[in-house]
Amino acid sequence: MKIVVDTMGGDNGSSVVCAAIIEFKKNNPDIDIIAVGNKEELSCLTGVCTVVESKSVVPMDAHALEVLRMKDSSMMVALDKLISEDADAIVSCGSTGGFLSAATVKVKLIPSVKRAALVAPFPTAIKGKKVVILDVGANNENSAEELYQFGFMGRAYSQAVYGVKEPALYLLNNGTEEGKGSPAVKDAYQLYKTNNFPGFKGNIEARDSLYGEADVIVCDGFSGNVLLKSTEGVAKFFNDELKKMFKKNAITKIGYLHVRKGIKDLRETMDYKNTGGAMLLGANKVVVKAHGNSDARAFVSALDVAKSLCEADIVSKIKEGLSE
Amino acid sequence: MKIVVDTMGGDNGSSVVCAAIIEFKKNNPDIDIIAVGNKEELSCLTGVCTVVESKSVVPMDAHALEVLRMKDSSMMVALDKLISEDADAIVSCGSTGGFLSAATVKVKLIPSVKRAALVAPFPTAIKGKKVVILDVGANNENSAEELYQFGFMGRAYSQAVYGVKEPALYLLNNGTEEGKGSPAVKDAYQLYKTNNFPGFKGNIEARDSLYGEADVIVCDGFSGNVLLKSTEGVAKFFNDELKKMFKKNAITKIGYLHVRKGIKDLRETMDYKNTGGAMLLGANKVVVKAHGNSDARAFVSALDVAKSLCEADIVSKIKEGLSE
Repeated sequence: MKIVVDTMGGDNGSSVVCAAIIEFKKNNPDIDIIAVGNKEELSCLTGVCTVVESKSVVPMDAHALEVLRMKDSSMMVALDKLISEDADAIVSCGSTGGFLSAATVKVKLIPSVKRAALVAPFPTAIKGKKVVILDVGANNENSAEELYQFGFMGRAYSQAVYGVKEPALYLLNNGTEEGKGSPAVKDAYQLYKTNNFPGFKGNIEARDSLYGEADVIVCDGFSGNVLLKSTEGVAKFFNDELKKMFKKNAITKIGYLHVRKGIKDLRETMDYKNTGGAMLLGANKVVVKAHGNSDARAFVSALDVAKSLCEADIVSKIKEGLSE
Repeated sequence: MKIVVDTMGGDNGSSVVCAAIIEFKKNNPDIDIIAVGNKEELSCLTGVCTVVESKSVVPMDAHALEVLRMKDSSMMVALDKLISEDADAIVSCGSTGGFLSAATVKVKLIPSVKRAALVAPFPTAIKGKKVVILDVGANNENSAEELYQFGFMGRAYSQAVYGVKEPALYLLNNGTEEGKGSPAVKDAYQLYKTNNFPGFKGNIEARDSLYGEADVIVCDGFSGNVLLKSTEGVAKFFNDELKKMFKKNAITKIGYLHVRKGIKDLRETMDYKNTGGAMLLGANKVVVKAHGNSDARAFVSALDVAKSLCEADIVSKIKEGLSE
């Protein structure tokens, strides 16, 4: 197995990515890593993995076209290496929009896939259980057919990464009854229903999405992005308010000493860093987008996700699902 | 001022609504209330306000057409009274979809309004400050023109209910840069920009929606519903997890004693019951939808919202805004 890593472009510099690669290689000595970036900054990787030089870094707000033009950037060099070395996966924590577009152009979509989808695992109220939600932001709008294809991708992901044999799949909607929702969601419902999609359970509302009944939730990229970011926002809001609350006075500070372990656990449950990153499903290779503000631990998780997806041969699984 | 109240159809029965009316009348002896419902159940309102008999109750999952057919239901009788008595406002905690559709048919939209919008105030990180978000569920999808009209409605609401002179208005989007988003949101951005809409500040992401910069956030009904319900869901998730955490052992239980006041404050901040209810903007009368599970306090808040909107003459304000 061969994984290409774009080491530049994250908020925390290449050093956290280097630390992650060293850690990952300790546990996975047989997996080849090709690290792309500034050679000096990557000198600590000598003897650990292959290092490939790149001259520039894609800025965080770069658009698709800008990225494609920056041929000597770590992101583009990494994508080129992915193809030329016939590697299995690529991981980057650079600009999301730019990376997804450039990866789609370079890696190409699986034939018959209409649109790629960004998939993210969310924490649920059931300890240790994650729910796979897609699309969370690769698209601005999606047709019913695209929403139907996302089902095959999400199912394959849930099976591959979380080992769920028969994932329970729901459509994100503004009500649970059949016949609810936007025209695209209504039509998608009928596609799932009439084709007897395995594990299709109907609609789910956003308020119930984290309660653990669903293994996979399908939505258009715009709503999915709202769901992802509002979950993130409210979680941060609560954390901030809890902190304020405990700092209020001597008594609340003593109170904090008694519950800090629990608060820490809660924070970890809601911490996206533990879930590694989002993956672009529907492309011909494994494409993982680590969080821009990943620390070494988060980047190791992203590498682990890439590894699981390669081991599970997710690309073939999606191809098979779609051809049925 | 005259307010019609549908006393039936809430999760907690008519008794909480009666209690709310009695409380509200104490503070507002000059406002006429017409309470519609089962006469026996409303006997406690004798001498407090006008009581009008109705024979049936709209079930919570009733669709628009079903509601319109139930002519002797408290909801339909209340809507009829709203028109025949030329009352100013109606408040109901019955079926949302049914109530909104029936109200739209009976009360009619303001001429030139393409679609009514359900508006809900959300708590923010700034103590006491609310952000007005619309549409949160009256529509399944919205055009750019509709999103533009929602701006006038949201602005009028923010000015009328929260007294904000120059509300900062944002479009909910999947990124902050101009040019981001779904086709409808992109076009709406241009309408706001080229028409120099007062207070228009651009795009906002869901994660920042509760941080208090925005006074008004405009979105389509589907995304708004996802935002509303995911905020609700994550808030409940946190509350549940906090409870579990504090119940863990004797030490955490002691810890709880020290912070329970703060936890209670936090829960109240996030509690929609304090915000009274959602309003259908764009209709020719004040139409307030109280939460289905409203208690007496929540229903009093809903009556207070109806009162503020009548006092501010919100219907005329929206008409003026749209005619400019």
